[in-house]
This record gives sequence, structure tokens and C-alpha cells, in this order.
Amino acid sequence: MVTTANASQLAALRHTSNARVDATLSALFDTHPAVAPRLEAAMRHGLLVGGKRLRPLLVYLAGNALGAREDALDAPAAAIELIHAYSLIHDDLPAMDDDDLRRGQPTVHKAFDEATAILAGDALQALAFEVLASQPYPRLGSMVTTLAVASGRAGMVAGQALDLAAVGGHPDVDALAHMHAHKTGALIVAAVRLGGLVAVDENDPRLAALIRYGRAIGLAFQIHDDVLDVTGDTVTLGKISGADAARAKPTYPSLLGLAGAQHKATTLIEEAIAALAPLGEQAAPLADLAHYMIERDH
Amino acid sequence: MVTTANASQLAALRHTSNARVDATLSALFDTHPAVAPRLEAAMRHGLLVGGKRLRPLLVYLAGNALGAREDALDAPAAAIELIHAYSLIHDDLPAMDDDDLRRGQPTVHKAFDEATAILAGDALQALAFEVLASQPYPRLGSMVTTLAVASGRAGMVAGQALDLAAVGGHPDVDALAHMHAHKTGALIVAAVRLGGLVAVDENDPRLAALIRYGRAIGLAFQIHDDVLDVTGDTVTLGKISGADAARAKPTYPSLLGLAGAQHKATTLIEEAIAALAPLGEQAAPLADLAHYMIERDH
Repeated sequence: MVTTANASQLAALRHTSNARVDATLSALFDTHPAVAPRLEAAMRHGLLVGGKRLRPLLVYLAGNALGAREDALDAPAAAIELIHAYSLIHDDLPAMDDDDLRRGQPTVHKAFDEATAILAGDALQALAFEVLASQPYPRLGSMVTTLAVASGRAGMVAGQALDLAAVGGHPDVDALAHMHAHKTGALIVAAVRLGGLVAVDENDPRLAALIRYGRAIGLAFQIHDDVLDVTGDTVTLGKISGADAARAKPTYPSLLGLAGAQHKATTLIEEAIAALAPLGEQAAPLADLAHYMIERDH
Repeated sequence: MVTTANASQLAALRHTSNARVDATLSALFDTHPAVAPRLEAAMRHGLLVGGKRLRPLLVYLAGNALGAREDALDAPAAAIELIHAYSLIHDDLPAMDDDDLRRGQPTVHKAFDEATAILAGDALQALAFEVLASQPYPRLGSMVTTLAVASGRAGMVAGQALDLAAVGGHPDVDALAHMHAHKTGALIVAAVRLGGLVAVDENDPRLAALIRYGRAIGLAFQIHDDVLDVTGDTVTLGKISGADAARAKPTYPSLLGLAGAQHKATTLIEEAIAALAPLGEQAAPLADLAHYMIERDH
């Protein structure tokens, strides 16, 4: 259980992580004379309107747990958020999920236009790799591979393709887990792996432990998202609640019932915390974050 | 002037380059169990329906001119073609240029659907970085940066944004050159720089010479494309001729006249060949390619 002390420690770590990643992301736009100002405004809109910054936090906590220097984690933290932001811009497009609202703000194609939203997403993806390669990491090749594989045809993009194909269909729980493992899980696993690779070699067993942790919290995170779509309200969520049901989108609550979905998420969080054992006390904030994953209300 | 002997030598080099890059690209799909088969089919469609493979050829010729091993050039050659292919898929989308035909084949959103085309482009971009990072290049960081900067907000994507903003406007020749330097020029310069970085350090003056060469042929290539849009026919081009005029798109022939545009392209090719001087005889195929740039009929 998260005690009050742990919860406030996690809140402080989140605050620091958000401040660091927001500073890194803002600096990308402050120092750079824009070739195409409207394009960059759309990139900023997609990136900076505020979000949970969960993936950067995972980079920092995983890196810290393995002894990485804080400032060496800024680039992978920013890179993973750039990939996440680009994916949201493209997922919201009319040809995809057709969403008007994201994080309580107009989506990029609503605030700008569809062509600019496509291009802003494309440029954010390129920027992610540019930022990652901006530091001379000893394991840069593995880091680029991690980010590219997790975000592409064997990861996030594949998951979005499976999700689009599933609308109106009747997948079972395994098919839903398979889709989520790609759509959201792959990038969450990449976040902890990137943080870890800043500090340790590809073969370090603590990296494998982090990946097991990432897989479990990734799925729990998505199940809790589905639960919030049923139990939350539009103002708190910053997006339209009940949207999944309205689209006849298969979800964990629709397949397992609300209590069944909540139980599944709790079990996964226990698995995630068990996976952290080889990391010792250093991993306590990752355990706290696992609890937070299924306690958040937005 | 290109003699018959040079032209046939260049044809042989093109044949080898195309065979190598097509083999590298095909292998990416042969060995990989697809998570989302329809997505991968769309990626293949965009990638493998055949094209000039000009950018990979530039990687091979630039690398060869500086003494790189042929097999060390396969990854950057494939990576740059992956970026080019993704950009064509997105540029063809209804929200962008809205093209139904590309290289004589239905565009990806016509052969599949719009969502799949967006995702296929996204996944091809990620795959480009995955392929580039698949080899332990001594200057991998610079190579990733080169590809990312050239394809993003300060390169190709910025150029496409400027191009979209220019439709119906009245840019002058400088504004048109500025747009093309980003939209097509950046990736052509990246191709020669990537090939060069396989062989030599960032500070090698021959790399700067290659970049001057790349800038000149990049613009000449685009001017010649505009010329072909006026003088070519749809069957030879594999796309609709006269499309620029139909869209009131500003072009070199519309600003300089047909003869003025052709003269400008010829001058640029002379500049490109002059820039190659520091590379000596090794760069002869690059000079031949420069001539070919403005002699091709599609």
C-alpha cells in the first residue's frame, strides 16, 4: 500500500520530472529559428498543452533506480514524450479516432488544420530521434533501436492499427491485451528500458526486471484508462467520458465487468512490484508509481 | 558532358545500387512476423512499387567516393529511402496533395485507406531510424542527427509545410528555392552526408564538398521535376502531368519561363560538378549523376 509519506515523495519526484522534461521540451522551441512557424506552433500545441508526462517520469525513475545521472536522463525523457505526443496528434485525426478534445484543449487538427496536424506529428517523431542522438551515450545504438522498435510496426503503430481494426469487432481478453501491449505498452516498456540503458549494459539483469515491470504497469495503466472511461467524468478526464461505449469499442470493463477489470489491474500492479525485487530499495519510487497507476482519477 | 561510356557506367552503378537497396528493404519484410499484416502490406506498397531510388544511389556514390565499404552503406541507403517513401505516402493524403496515382500505382490511401496510410508512413519513419541504428557505426550519433534534422521541422517536413502554404500564393524565385531546399534538398544533402559519414569524420573537408554538391543537385532535380511537369506526359512520368499548373502551384517554369528554368538547372549542375573538385577522380560517378539529374525524362 502507498502510505501518505510515499505518496508525497512520489508527488515530489513527479514535480521534478515534469519540470525537467517541460524545460527540455520548451528549450527545443526557444532557441530555434523556425523555418515553418505555423508547423512549429502546431508541434508546441500538441506537446505543451500539458499532460501526465508519465513516460518521462518512468525514464527518470528507472534511470535513478540503476544509478544514472539525472541530467543524462533528460534527452531520453524528452524523446519518449515527443513520440507519445506525435502519436496522440495522429490518433486524433478524422481518419483515425476523430477526436475534437485532448487534455481539455482542441486537438491539433481542430486548432490548426488536418495537413498541419499530420506534418506536426511527423516532425515530432523526427525530433524525438534528434533529441535522443544529441548526447554521446555509450549505448546510443541500443537506445535508438529501443525507441524505434517500440514506436513502429512492431510496437505502438502496430497497436493503433490493431485497435482501428478491432472497432465493431468482438476480440477476447487476450486479443485486447495483445493490442494494448503494442499500442501503449511498448512505449511504457521503452521508457524504463531507455532510462536503464543510460546506466547499465543491455545484458544487465536489472534491465530485464524493469521490462517485466513496464509490461505489467503498461497493461494496468490501460485497463485503468478503460475503467475511468466508465467511472470518470468529462471535466476530470479532460476528454469525453463514455466515448469507448459510444463507439462500441471493446474494453476491459465490457469484457470482464467493472469489478473484474479493477481486479485484473490490481493483480498486474502486484506483479509489477514483485518484478522490482532485484533492484532493491532504489526502486521504491517505481513501486509507488505502480500504485498510483490504478489510483489516479484522470 | 556525359560520354556514352560514362552513361553506361552510371547505369551499371544505378543497377547495383537499386539491387542492393531493394534487397535490404525486402529483407525487412521477409524475416519479420508482422504484428499488423495490413499495416505492413501498406508499408510495402509505399516502399516497393518501384521508384528512382535516387537517394540510396547518392549514399552509395558519396560513400564510395570517400572509400567506404559497400556493405556499410546498405543501412543508410535503406534508411533514407524509408524516409522518402514515408513522406510520399503522407504528401499524397487527401488533406495534403490529394493524389490518386504515384509511380503509376494507386497511392497508399487509395490502395488501402487513409488511416492505414497515415500509420504506414509513421511506421516507415520509425523503421528508418531502426535500420540506421542496426550497425555499430563509429559516427552513429552524427548519422542519426543528420537523418532526423533533414527529415523534420528544419528540413523536409518544414518544406512540405511551406509548399502547402504557398499554393495559390505568389512566391518569388528565392522563396521557391527556400521551399525546395527544405522539401527535397534537405534529404538529398542528407544522403551524401550519410554516405560520407560512414567513411570520414564530421570535420573532413570532403564532407563539406559533398554537401555543396548535394545542395546544387537537389535544387536542379526539383527544377527539372517542374520542367517535366510541363514537358512530360502522364505515362512516362507515372503521375499526372500538368498537375502543378492545374493547381496554380508556383513553379520554376511559371516564374522563369521554360528556357529560364532549364538554364538555371544547367548552371546548378555545373556548380555541383565544380564542388566535387576536392574529391578527385573517385567522384566521377557523382559528376555523371549530376548530368543525369537534368537529362532524365521521368
